[in-house]
Amino acid sequence: MFTFGITAQAPATRARAGIFHTPHGDLLTPAFAPVGTQGAVKALTPAQLRDLGASLVLANTYHLYLRPGDALVKELGGLHEFMQWPGPLLTDSGGFQVFSLSDTRKIDDDGVTFKSHIDGSIHRFTPERSIEIQNNLGADIIMAFDECPPPLERGYVELAVKRTHAWAERCRNFHSRTDQALFGIVQGGIFPDLRQQSARFLTALDFPGYAIGGLAVGETKEQMHAMLDCTVPALPENKPRYLMGVGMPEDLVNGVARGIDIFDCVLPTRLARNAAALTRIGRLNMKNAQYARDPGPVEEGCACYCCANFTRAYIRHLIVAEEILAAVLLTMHNVHLLLTLMREMRTAIIDGAFHNYAQSFLQNYRAISSQ
Amino acid sequence: MFTFGITAQAPATRARAGIFHTPHGDLLTPAFAPVGTQGAVKALTPAQLRDLGASLVLANTYHLYLRPGDALVKELGGLHEFMQWPGPLLTDSGGFQVFSLSDTRKIDDDGVTFKSHIDGSIHRFTPERSIEIQNNLGADIIMAFDECPPPLERGYVELAVKRTHAWAERCRNFHSRTDQALFGIVQGGIFPDLRQQSARFLTALDFPGYAIGGLAVGETKEQMHAMLDCTVPALPENKPRYLMGVGMPEDLVNGVARGIDIFDCVLPTRLARNAAALTRIGRLNMKNAQYARDPGPVEEGCACYCCANFTRAYIRHLIVAEEILAAVLLTMHNVHLLLTLMREMRTAIIDGAFHNYAQSFLQNYRAISSQ
Repeated sequence: MFTFGITAQAPATRARAGIFHTPHGDLLTPAFAPVGTQGAVKALTPAQLRDLGASLVLANTYHLYLRPGDALVKELGGLHEFMQWPGPLLTDSGGFQVFSLSDTRKIDDDGVTFKSHIDGSIHRFTPERSIEIQNNLGADIIMAFDECPPPLERGYVELAVKRTHAWAERCRNFHSRTDQALFGIVQGGIFPDLRQQSARFLTALDFPGYAIGGLAVGETKEQMHAMLDCTVPALPENKPRYLMGVGMPEDLVNGVARGIDIFDCVLPTRLARNAAALTRIGRLNMKNAQYARDPGPVEEGCACYCCANFTRAYIRHLIVAEEILAAVLLTMHNVHLLLTLMREMRTAIIDGAFHNYAQSFLQNYRAISSQ
Repeated sequence: MFTFGITAQAPATRARAGIFHTPHGDLLTPAFAPVGTQGAVKALTPAQLRDLGASLVLANTYHLYLRPGDALVKELGGLHEFMQWPGPLLTDSGGFQVFSLSDTRKIDDDGVTFKSHIDGSIHRFTPERSIEIQNNLGADIIMAFDECPPPLERGYVELAVKRTHAWAERCRNFHSRTDQALFGIVQGGIFPDLRQQSARFLTALDFPGYAIGGLAVGETKEQMHAMLDCTVPALPENKPRYLMGVGMPEDLVNGVARGIDIFDCVLPTRLARNAAALTRIGRLNMKNAQYARDPGPVEEGCACYCCANFTRAYIRHLIVAEEILAAVLLTMHNVHLLLTLMREMRTAIIDGAFHNYAQSFLQNYRAISSQ
């Protein structure tokens, strides 16, 4: 039911274009997944998402388990039906959110007891429980329950890798639905030997895909790239690779160049709600007074609904006036940019032009905008 | 440039179907105008509004004058271009908001000095200034500057009617753009003689359309209906009649039956942002726990995007989880219902079936829902 075919491999980099077949449609890679944490990509309807060209959407197990509850989602036909996303869906394991959002009470080798960030109630996730919840939600791609440690503390990272491996085996043993692909998650902080060890261990478990977790959580960009450079070659060629929680424009290009097929990130949508537009030359703060009378689009040459119709002056007015439409239009723009980048990279890989594309993109892009 | 043709007149009521020609398209009446206070109908894109079948949209002069400023809107091509609404637009005079939102400093026979509700700065509106601002905004239908008094205080209402008449003349004299239709506004509180006097005075000034102001501001529904019953016959047959600030479902039906052609109201969109769905049987609080597992649509039989795709359980989840999409989808539903009602009433008038339609609608509808 899940097969991954490599359409083209770019010379001089690890970039590749592929197709991952899922029960809800083919995922053309490299692909970026907008995040619908609570079963909705913030500020967008599924129709708008579709018009933007989204293929894969991510939802968070931790959030949906707490509210409205995975049993209710199952009762209502599963997450595709509940949120009306007809394409491929991915859920994370809940692990990262348990450690980052909740008041974690106790981690032991069997699982994690934690306090809900919503109402303080006590809950427990084990590898089996995470899979059970993800089975109820019914996404096409689901994740093994892992422990995501602070990436720089070697002692802790070693322990977390060990646990993550034991939990990955338990997830694999517990999961039985054939219409859901369970991905293993490589951990290992910023330590090449731990990353490689983790990649090899998980590869031996023969998952239909592999995620790289625990990055973009405090390390430098150089450290992130170094981890990709040492981890990707230790993963099988013929399986999709998913870099979790990463998705700023420059990260997508750098990730694809290093052999990543799938990305997700909340930043494009979160930044939009905070008045920031992502563009090919960097991030613009659209609330800035310099845009007050600007008759141009948010990004010159962009074909999205926001840029095709509205001026920077109007967008700034909506932001200052606190209109919901500001969030809607900037979310559209930011998601459109990332999805367009992914399509362009795929085409460039197939055309044998990826190396030039990536170089030229990264030369023009300023990760931290001066504007 | 502005002509109003009456297509059909319903027997046994004052309801009529008509077409008001404007420079931005024909307005089929009776019509409901969603409100885009600050140059955006809250939570909807113009494309969504269009898909919902909206024709006329209202924007508020007071708000746009204060922010982003009418000069800027003019510089950017006018309000149609600024907010990308290609159809007919209507702006109010700013009078009502000056009295209801700002800290009003001084009303005199020449105009009103007031404090901005945004930053406390001091501003002054006169009839001429209101028209100048509305000329800059460039809506198809603009309003004479009026004084909207508390409707029950006869002494004050008499004074306000006198001022409103003097100001209507000044607006008429000052306004020169032929691509904008200036409507006079009938005032008179709940006093039939004052309403009739006001209607006759304004009719003599020969406006291309007439608004009825100062209702839905504290009087009972019966008083509102009585005012329509005495005012409408005193207005010319061959000009459109606009009931300002009124637009709950039952008000639309009762208003059309009394000869009103145009309505506007913030409630359908505001209620949507407060989790209330308008339906043909009354108002539903979609946050209510009874909907938590409800697999049905917000309103059975409704063809809107929200009802065609999503369950009450999902909508309630979005509300509880404070997702922007809840406001978007409920706004779509509420606006769709009102626009559908208007279309149905127009068809019923043309088919000679309005009286039955209105009776049957009002029998099923509970203005205050028990749910």
